[in-house]
Amino acid sequence: MRTDTHQIRAVLEGWAAAVRAKDMSGILANHTEDMVMFDVPEPLQSKGMQAYRETWDLFYRYSPGGDGSFDLSQIEISAGDSVAYATAIVTIFGSPLRLTVGLRKHGDNWLIAHEHHSHAAPLDTAPQR
Amino acid sequence: MRTDTHQIRAVLEGWAAAVRAKDMSGILANHTEDMVMFDVPEPLQSKGMQAYRETWDLFYRYSPGGDGSFDLSQIEISAGDSVAYATAIVTIFGSPLRLTVGLRKHGDNWLIAHEHHSHAAPLDTAPQR
Repeated sequence: MRTDTHQIRAVLEGWAAAVRAKDMSGILANHTEDMVMFDVPEPLQSKGMQAYRETWDLFYRYSPGGDGSFDLSQIEISAGDSVAYATAIVTIFGSPLRLTVGLRKHGDNWLIAHEHHSHAAPLDTAPQR
Repeated sequence: MRTDTHQIRAVLEGWAAAVRAKDMSGILANHTEDMVMFDVPEPLQSKGMQAYRETWDLFYRYSPGGDGSFDLSQIEISAGDSVAYATAIVTIFGSPLRLTVGLRKHGDNWLIAHEHHSHAAPLDTAPQR
């Protein structure tokens, strides 16, 4: 269990480092083919690795210069034998983003099968949940 | 595994039914004490059952009449021996909400330990991820 938690933390930190480095192959390196993405902007969801890759193309198009930040904090990992999930706060452009990641173990490797990225909506503009 | 998936689906459907019925004790019935909530509106996150309950007080305050909808669709569950996560789309006020839930097994029971609720931001207003 402890080893699993360490492996998952390394997967997440490696992924975030790849985002900072704009290293697309690093970003995509540890995901399942049936990856389900709930990204900050539309679409509502994307499925599969091609669609996941496109969310990052969009991300870099909207932040061409970027500020290079994509730092994970408050990482909390719950790992079982073959399924795990993790929560974290990502600091990006000075704004905190909530991140939930679902993972599955394939052989000896933990792979990301789901990501959910969102900002908390300001309360006065969020009368509808 | 199949039984676990069935149990988790029942926990999620029971929780959504309680939301529709404004049955607070039903909403809170199957959660861990250290529950971490990423809700649609601020705050960024809430921890613990008291704070979780307050997110629902807020929800009903903002939707006093409500339309009674809180219907789960596209439920996908990944369950291991003791940890699971699920993704779903919730239809509420005619608008789709993305839902990710993290669960842990306590004895024979699956409990919700994490929820992440968000709308996809319109692309033209989401230059910052």
